[in-house]
Amino acid sequence: MLEKVNHIAIAVPDLSKAILNYKNTFNCKISKPLKLLDHGVTTAFISLQNTNIELLEPLGKNSPIRRFLERNNNGGIHHICYEVKDINLSIKNLIKNNCKILGDGIPREGAHGKPVIFIHPSNFNGTLIELEQT
Amino acid sequence: MLEKVNHIAIAVPDLSKAILNYKNTFNCKISKPLKLLDHGVTTAFISLQNTNIELLEPLGKNSPIRRFLERNNNGGIHHICYEVKDINLSIKNLIKNNCKILGDGIPREGAHGKPVIFIHPSNFNGTLIELEQT
Repeated sequence: MLEKVNHIAIAVPDLSKAILNYKNTFNCKISKPLKLLDHGVTTAFISLQNTNIELLEPLGKNSPIRRFLERNNNGGIHHICYEVKDINLSIKNLIKNNCKILGDGIPREGAHGKPVIFIHPSNFNGTLIELEQT
Repeated sequence: MLEKVNHIAIAVPDLSKAILNYKNTFNCKISKPLKLLDHGVTTAFISLQNTNIELLEPLGKNSPIRRFLERNNNGGIHHICYEVKDINLSIKNLIKNNCKILGDGIPREGAHGKPVIFIHPSNFNGTLIELEQT
């Protein structure tokens, strides 16, 4: 069962510019950029009343969002992260429904220190889905 | 100021299939499909605890999502709808920051009967943004 949208991630080519744009136009509250070397991204979160927008800039040559930005030069919505209560139960249901989990299929520690998996976008109408156990 | 994410819209080529997929895999609560002739889409909402996912299927030849689905055959995340308190104030800020509002720039009645506008995706890193006055 999907509980909440934890965040919507938007890949951007220039994080500082994107932050300024959201601040100036929408007066958004945005966290200080954080370099996540292990994840190959620098992130900043826009806090909304019910969820967050995660702005992602590639960090390092092997950043997982570099290819996405080569195809979408100006950026784009990269994935939706849903919270689930039991990620192992979710994995069982995904396998039962022939969904492809990215990587080795084993949950790894996400940006919030909680177990996460990513589901191949072909399984859900071109939408890359991250599941995070709450 | 952006208040909440009202919904995230995902364009899909086959709404019935998409509904079944989300129900079977994630046990989601989903509203009955609703044909919105004026908007050129059939919609169904996935209710989550903090926001909604709007699944959109094209309706009619002039559906505004038809071109998107020609480029993304399997579907994709189409737009994010944010709630704002004062849409006319938002429009003033958008114009001040050189953002392009789609259509004639005047709010029209959205799917929830409230005034909405759409902002050109080039202004926010390839993200089509809908603003809805609450």
